[in-house]
Parts: sequence; structure tokens; C-alpha cells
Amino acid sequence: MASSPPSSAPFSSSEEATTSSNDGSAVQSLKYSRRASLRSVVGRPDGGRGLAGKRAVVGGWVKSSNTVKAKLAGPVSPARMPTTETTTGLTCTEVLMARVPLIRCFARLIGGAADVDRASSVSFKLATGTALMRINDGSCVADLQIVVDSSLCPLKQVTAIGACVLVEGKIELVEGRSQQHVVELRVDKVLHVGTVDIDKYPPSNVELPPPELVKDYPQLATRTTAMASVARVRSEMLHAAHAFFQTNGFFHVNTPIITATTVAGDRSKMFRVMRLESKSDNRAITPEVVRASIKAKTKQIEALNRSESNKEALEAAKLDLQRANELARQLEQQGNADFSDDFFQHPVYLSPDHTLHLETYACALSSVYTFSPVFQAESLERHKHLAERWTIDAELAFAELEDAISCAEDCLMWLLSTVSKNCSDELKFLSNGENNGYFSHIEPAVSSPWERITYNAAVNTLLQVREKSFKAKVELGTPLSHEHMSYLVDDHYKKPVIIYEYPKELKPFYARLMEDGTKVSAFDIVVPKVGTIAYGTQKEERMDNFTARIDELRLPRDHLESYLDIRRHGTVKHSGFSIDIERLIFLVTCLSDIRDVKPFQRTKSNAKC
Amino acid sequence: MASSPPSSAPFSSSEEATTSSNDGSAVQSLKYSRRASLRSVVGRPDGGRGLAGKRAVVGGWVKSSNTVKAKLAGPVSPARMPTTETTTGLTCTEVLMARVPLIRCFARLIGGAADVDRASSVSFKLATGTALMRINDGSCVADLQIVVDSSLCPLKQVTAIGACVLVEGKIELVEGRSQQHVVELRVDKVLHVGTVDIDKYPPSNVELPPPELVKDYPQLATRTTAMASVARVRSEMLHAAHAFFQTNGFFHVNTPIITATTVAGDRSKMFRVMRLESKSDNRAITPEVVRASIKAKTKQIEALNRSESNKEALEAAKLDLQRANELARQLEQQGNADFSDDFFQHPVYLSPDHTLHLETYACALSSVYTFSPVFQAESLERHKHLAERWTIDAELAFAELEDAISCAEDCLMWLLSTVSKNCSDELKFLSNGENNGYFSHIEPAVSSPWERITYNAAVNTLLQVREKSFKAKVELGTPLSHEHMSYLVDDHYKKPVIIYEYPKELKPFYARLMEDGTKVSAFDIVVPKVGTIAYGTQKEERMDNFTARIDELRLPRDHLESYLDIRRHGTVKHSGFSIDIERLIFLVTCLSDIRDVKPFQRTKSNAKC
Repeated sequence: MASSPPSSAPFSSSEEATTSSNDGSAVQSLKYSRRASLRSVVGRPDGGRGLAGKRAVVGGWVKSSNTVKAKLAGPVSPARMPTTETTTGLTCTEVLMARVPLIRCFARLIGGAADVDRASSVSFKLATGTALMRINDGSCVADLQIVVDSSLCPLKQVTAIGACVLVEGKIELVEGRSQQHVVELRVDKVLHVGTVDIDKYPPSNVELPPPELVKDYPQLATRTTAMASVARVRSEMLHAAHAFFQTNGFFHVNTPIITATTVAGDRSKMFRVMRLESKSDNRAITPEVVRASIKAKTKQIEALNRSESNKEALEAAKLDLQRANELARQLEQQGNADFSDDFFQHPVYLSPDHTLHLETYACALSSVYTFSPVFQAESLERHKHLAERWTIDAELAFAELEDAISCAEDCLMWLLSTVSKNCSDELKFLSNGENNGYFSHIEPAVSSPWERITYNAAVNTLLQVREKSFKAKVELGTPLSHEHMSYLVDDHYKKPVIIYEYPKELKPFYARLMEDGTKVSAFDIVVPKVGTIAYGTQKEERMDNFTARIDELRLPRDHLESYLDIRRHGTVKHSGFSIDIERLIFLVTCLSDIRDVKPFQRTKSNAKC
Repeated sequence: MASSPPSSAPFSSSEEATTSSNDGSAVQSLKYSRRASLRSVVGRPDGGRGLAGKRAVVGGWVKSSNTVKAKLAGPVSPARMPTTETTTGLTCTEVLMARVPLIRCFARLIGGAADVDRASSVSFKLATGTALMRINDGSCVADLQIVVDSSLCPLKQVTAIGACVLVEGKIELVEGRSQQHVVELRVDKVLHVGTVDIDKYPPSNVELPPPELVKDYPQLATRTTAMASVARVRSEMLHAAHAFFQTNGFFHVNTPIITATTVAGDRSKMFRVMRLESKSDNRAITPEVVRASIKAKTKQIEALNRSESNKEALEAAKLDLQRANELARQLEQQGNADFSDDFFQHPVYLSPDHTLHLETYACALSSVYTFSPVFQAESLERHKHLAERWTIDAELAFAELEDAISCAEDCLMWLLSTVSKNCSDELKFLSNGENNGYFSHIEPAVSSPWERITYNAAVNTLLQVREKSFKAKVELGTPLSHEHMSYLVDDHYKKPVIIYEYPKELKPFYARLMEDGTKVSAFDIVVPKVGTIAYGTQKEERMDNFTARIDELRLPRDHLESYLDIRRHGTVKHSGFSIDIERLIFLVTCLSDIRDVKPFQRTKSNAKC
């Protein structure tokens, strides 16, 4: 069995193959890629010092470069720097250094120019016609400095920012020519060059602010050190989550994405799923589509009226408009349409929430969790809402609210501390090099147990606030606004706060009714900067209360029969919670916009590629 | 930081709390559930012997039971067995024992009656008015036998199959009263009883064959030992997969589910995603809907014609029909509808494939994988196709086809061997107790490297077959049928076969063209019983070839600009593969129908709950 035992340290058992090298002493390549990972070279604690003298095959994309031109004599001053790349880097740095953290990250990525200067200012020590480049393969924050001689390949190709190179050479110590690098690779073989159209390459465009880069070129965004760091943080977060649940005896299940069961109050925020017609992919007609076509037809008629040339065309257009209006009228009448010919033969949606399906698993396997996407069509406050989010949902049988709260708190603490330990380079980079940048977010969250207060206590605390006035009125029975919550976590308690015991009107119908008959067993976990990062409920397991609440809210009973069944037969106390992964990453990465937590975001009018 | 370090053995660090017991020596409870997991009692290698004398709180659902009625004297013969449950079990066993493996599993679940007999036949040793029950909490295959005295609670309630109980008591050795159980729990406190409406409880209904149980009551299916075992196998499979990729330096990324980019040849098999209208959830009208309403209106007119009573109604109905026909005609004309008013302002789909998005991550982070759902509206052969499937997709930069093949083979071998090691109880149960049942599927797959042959070699092998004739003609350039593939793996090589180097017509447009200009670097992994379980390609990284192929196939270029970009700028050789998780579980669990691999299946006309 060739595959590596998961228990072994990363890479250890996967470093069997060695680089195609005539030298016995070579850095081991990855098992499934013909090169050594940069993480195994410059990502080492010693920065690669221990590998000096060894040969290696490495690959990556060029982050910055500097060429020593033959005509140059003596130290190269930044002003006289010949390569556009470095200049680009400098300008970009100046332009962007003042901006939000993410932008500063991009700046330091495209630039890092300062370092190239230091390198270049002494680079006359290098043979002329030599290129000094920094490459990165996305496996770690640190770049590897490589030295390529013009005799090996046309330097203009390999030195362009964004070019991809696969090279072989010898690792050597950098004798004080750079404060950033311990070692560099002296290339003696260029195995592959993926050229770049430098003028068209978005990341090298100074005029393009990084947020637009992410929005307009998601396919290239992960090539930036900032977005690559965010991606690695996400990956580490997910691995830590699976480890947490596996260690605590949870089973990983997959709840359905397409579902007919909806308990969402506002269906206008759900996505409908339909099968496409074979002839055309634009056949499913909504009232919006018809209205749009009416708009178009009216414009056309106006145009024809202005140019009084073509009477027939005008008549035809008018008739066409009549028809379109008739179509719109018909659509109004199709309220109770028959879906028996659609693929699923009834209306189906994209799941906005995995709670109910997860319950059925918990009432059979006891402790379960899922990591799945949820969907919500939220038009307001685009910067806060993603139409497609991934959440971790856990459900425990034989468990009450306090159990779910403890589990959620432990899980979040575990995720935060694991990531801050294993992704310190990424977090430092994203917080612009200041250790405190990310600790200011994470430290209060992992240093001590979190505050637990009831909803009533939270409201009373807010009612006593004198030093400031809130936009939204503080009142018992009304939801807490983002402003209210941020006061509690940022100003009052200065740590994450767990708010529990809510009025039943503020929580889903399935939350368990408490003895007083007005409150339910539910909780929210609120953290600085982000707001609510997790929420949970103890489910109503008592058949009578459950049905009573369904009738009270006039919910479609037929959708809920399956959830009545698990209460009708062998019901059990069960509780669970949901963690919003994108918000968690947003919290630790110091990003300024949650839409930057991954390249292919789905928000209002944005699902292009 | 309270949470348990993932490195620790399952439960070890999560077993801090102890049961609420006046006895110091108690089985430790789960950290987030107020009871001990049955896996930590009867799931132990010693079957629980080492825990004899300890107290424990345990919970679970009643699988079978037998009550010793006061009037009984001497041994109880099955015929005189008083409880319907056991009789049910027996009948069910007889009825079902002859059926497919899954059904046998259900039979042994609902019954296990034989064992109850043995217990009951000697149960006079127990005090009268005592109930002997077997409960399970879904954490392992083995049930725990518990003994409850009628003085503690009404036995009729707790002994009903499907009831949920939370009990406290003392673990004692079973003195030879059962061959199945080493220990039993002598209950002295009943903490919770979730009653069951036995007549309405589907799993206790003999007349209901298990496949229908799964189909009609997915919410309860996981309570059966068979489906619970499948769920545990799935969970173990997923944990093993994450471990494999993490150990080999892959980053876990999430590609989008909602996408505008489609490279699917047949769009009729894609699902369209639309935002719902706020007023009603039935507003999106397709031609099918209109045709359906025309059907209905026509029927109505016929009816009115028959009863010649209401002339006005008839006229109105006829007018209405005319309008509906007009609507249908209009829909035909909406070919190039304008989606500017829809949520995303352009047509979007459910992703049928994560390959292209994953490529963009790989061309930045080098080695990435994702575990996500994919969607396909396949009407034919429902038993073979799920509309919603989960796949593991991996993509490697600086890697060629052989690298991807090796990685996929190692990964599959790792998953199969891990599951057969860690889920042997489940696999034995699902293969009806015969060790060979599951080994017959898995052993050839993990005992030796798999066969690697080119598509041409596969075809030539099939052309030389004399002993049988295939339904589908064997011919170079045509796809291999399921029959062809099963001949290769089952009859010829008797092990999984990796088929590579296909004619370009048989593989996606992005597969890398080989030197001969007719074949592409792609592969399929074919296993016994299931057929193709994984497939992969080396991607075409050369801009010219990529665009040439797109034009050749007349694919919509605008969709593909983002994938052109990663070839336009710093292109690199990259390869990847996709593993079908449901098929993998289908392979190891000896199920007879892939729709049984999870309870909430999505197939043609089936997405109800």
C-alpha cells in the first residue's frame, strides 16, 4: 500500500522520490509533483540553512526580479533600476501603502521592492547578464530567491512578474546580500518557462487596486501572496475542524443541498432549482424576464415612432408588445402551477440551512456534523452577505443547550488557537507584519473562557449605557443590532460573548420552549469585528410543543412531516450549532471585506466565473 | 483551551466528565453528551468485559426486547413469546432472509430475533416482570443488552422497538445467557423515555421491504443498523481522505456551487438556479408548466362539454385555453431572454464539475483538493445516477498524467484499506456476516498494484474475446460500455484497471493533446461491480492548443476567458482527478442499489424531504 500514513508528519512519508539530480545529496521532491515544495526549503524554521549545498528542483511564479545589465557599472540605484517590474513594484508600493491591510499585503507582494533594492544595490557582485528573482509556489509565505544566468535562457522571459518557472540548481547561503533570505538557488538548468503577457497581466497593473483585482480576476487572485495566505488559513481551519469532531466521536454526514423542505420564513431569499430545457438554456421564464422584454419592446416602439419610416415594423412591434403584456398577465395567473413535468416533479430549493436534515442523523447516530454550503439571496448590504457560504453544523443527541454551547465554544477556541499556531506566517503577513495585528483579534478569544449572558441581561446592560446612544432602540423582545453586539464585545466585555435564552419570536420555530413559555433555548456567539459567528439551539423534542408552534406560525405542515416523525417515534433531547466559516476566516485574517475571503464569491449580480 | 488535541486517540481526551454516579468507578461520559458512548462499552475489543462492575449512563434506541411476564413459568418458547416486537422480528427475518444483502442486514437488525430467543429461553432465570432489551446509540454495530425491572417504569413503554431510553445502572457480565453479549447493564434509574407509536413506526412494519423504508422514510432509515453502518463507513472514508491529502501537502479549497461557467456538453442535464419571487414561490414558469396547464384546461373543457349545463363557464374556459396557448407560443419566442432583473443578472447553474475552478487554485497553490457536491439531471437509469453526488477532486501543478494516476491510485488504496481496517464490524454486518463478503470486493483492490493499460490495449483485448459476445460493439474510437469494462476487471484482469490515453473525442476539451494529435492524456479507474470510480486528465496548458480545441468544438468562448487567463499568464503543466464518493461507498458496502448509500437521495422525481 503505497499511500502515506496520515499519522506521519506532513511530507515526511511523501518525500520518497528524489529530484532528477546527478548529485546524491538532493532535497527530496514531493511524491506526486516533480519538484520540492518551497515550504520544505524556505518554509523550514532555519529558512533553509540546513539545506545549503544540496541540489533541488523547484517551481513557482515570479514575484519580483532584477536583472544586472551588462552596461551597468557599480551599485544600481533604485532610480536607475532597469526592469519595469521593480519600478512597478515601487510605484505600487507608494500608491498602496496607505490603504487597508489587504491592500498593504498586495503592495508588499507586488513590491517587496525594498528588498529587491537591497539586493540590487549590491548586485554588482553578481556576474553581469544575471537575473535575481523571487519565486513562490503557494505552499508558504516566504519566497525563494533564485539566480539565473542569461546563458540558460532569455532573461526577459523568466524575469517577468507572473511567469512560471521550473528550475534545477544548487542551494547556497546568501552572503549578506539580502536581509530577507538565508539561502538562494543557483540555477543551472531551466526545465520549464510559462511566459506571461506582462502588459495584460492584472496583478502587475499598478492602476488596478487589489479589491478590483480580486473581483475582476478571481482566477488570478490566489496568485497574490495575500489571497494565497487566506486560502492556506482556510485549509488549516478545515483540517482542524475535522480533527476536532473526529476526536470527539462525531460522524461526518452529508445533508442534501437540493431540498423541498424549507422552514425559511422569507422564501424570497431562497433560490429555486430547475432543470434546463434541452433545446435552449434560456427557457425558464420569470416575471422579471417578461417585464424586461416588455421594457425592450416599448423602447423599440419609441424608436420606430421617432423614425417614421417603417409602418409595418411599427405595427408588428405593437402587436408583439400586446403579446408580451398578455404573457405577463398569464404569468400572474400561474400561481398554482403544476410541476409534474419538472425533473423533481415538485418545487425544490437550494438549502438555506442544514439543521433539520442534520437532526434526523443525530437522532440515529447521536453525534454528527457536516461541512456544507448554504444559500441565501440577500440583496441588501452586499458587503456583509454572501449568497453562497460554507458552514460547519453539528448536532448532538442526548444533549442540552449547555452541551451545545460548550462544544461550540471549545470548537471555536480550538480552531482559532490551531490556526494562530500553524499559520502564524500567514496571519503576520495579512496583518501587515505586526504580530499584534492578528493577535488583537485572536488573543482575547483564546486567552480565557468567553462571557455567557442571557438575552435579558444583554438588553439590561445596553439599557444602562449612558456614554453613547445607539441608532437602533434597545428594547426587550427586539433583536440586537450589529451596533449593540459590537458594544458588548468590543467596549463592555472586551472578549467574545455568548448570548442565550431568547424570546421565542426571535428564534426559529424548532427551538425548545423553556418553562416560562416565552423564551427558548437558543444562543448566539458574538465576536469582535465580525458580529455573530455561530448560533445554536436546543431542539424542541416534545411532539405537542413542536406541533403547537408549527400551527402558531402557520408553517406548511406537509414539509415538516419527517421532522414530526423523529419526535413521534423515540424522541430524544438534542442540541446543535452552526459556525460560519467565511466569517471565522474574516475574523482571523484582518481583511477589510468579507468578499475577499475567497476568490469566487457569490453576491448580488456577481457569479460570473 | 478546553478542546481536545486532535492527535489524541478518539475519545481519550474527550472523556473527562464522569457519569452522575454515587460510585467512584464509572464509565466516563462523552464530553458534550450526558452519557457514555456504546462504542466505549460494547465497542471495545473485549466487548466490555473490562468494565464489569462499573456504573454507566447510556442512551439509545430499542432494537429488540423481551419481557418476562409474571404468568410465565419455565422456559419461554418462541411460539409463546408474548411481545409483538420479537414476533415481528421473527416474521421479518423469515420474510426477508432470502433477499439482497441490504435486506438481510435489515432483517438481522429488526430481528436478531434468534438471539432474543436464546435469551428468553433461559430468561426465567431473570426475575418476573423484567424486561431484557437491546439498545443502540448509532456509535457502533454492537447493541448493549440492558435489564429493566417493571418497578422502574411501565415496561410496555421502554420495550417497544424504536423507543429511546436514557438509563443509568451497573455493568455486569452475562453468565452464558447470551452468546452475543459479554456484558449487560442492570438498570437502576430510567432518566428518559422517548416513546414510540409502535403501529405507525415504519422500521417495525414487517410488510415494508427495507428499500421502500429507505425511500419512503429517509428520516428514520439511519436508525437501522444497516444504514447506520453505511453512514459510519462514509464518515471514516471522509476522515481518511482528508488525512491523505493533508499528509501529502494538499490545501483544502472550496470551489463555487453556483456558477455561470459551464463546459458541460449537454446543458439539458444541468440545473438552473433562480431567485424566487417574493409573493409566491411558484412564479418561475417553464414551457413544461404551461403545457401542463394547457393539459388541465383541455380536460376541464371536455368535462364542461359533457355536462352541457354552464355555457358561460365553457366559453370562459375556451378563452382561457386560447390564452394558455398564446403563453406557450410566447415562451417559444423568449429564446434570448434578458436576465438583468434576476439575482445574479445572468443565467447561473449548479456546478456539474469542479475541475475548471480547481485549476485556478492549483495554478497558484500547486496542490489542492476539494470535497463538494456536483449536480446532474439524469433521467435514464435512475438506479445508476444520483442527481446530487459528492466528489473528491484533486489538482496538482507541476504534475503530469502519471503523477495524477499514481496519486489517485494511492488515495483509493488508502481509503479502501483504512475503511476495511477501521470499519470491519460495519463491513462484516453489511456483507451478512461473511468476512469474504466485503473482502471479495476490497481484497483484489488493496493486495497489489492495479493494472494500467491504454485505451487501445483495452479495445484490442476486448476484440480478442471469443468466449462471449458483447451487446455493444467493440470498436476503436467508441466509448467502452459498462459490460466491456466489467469484463476487463471481473473476468480478464480480476483487479481494478486504470485505462489511459483516450481518443480526444471521448474526453473533455481541456484534456492535454498528445504528440500524435489524436489522443489525449486522460484516464479512468475501473473497479469491480461499480465500474468507473475515478477519472482524471492532464490539462492542456498550451494556449494555442487550448484555444484551437475550444474553436474546434465551438464552445462559448466568453465562459472560458478565466481559464484562458491561467494559460495566458505563467502557464504550467497540471493534472488532476475526481473520485466519486457515493460509488466508493457503494463498492465497499455490498449494497444492491446506489440509492441506498445515503438516506436523502436526489434522483428523478425524488427530492421530497
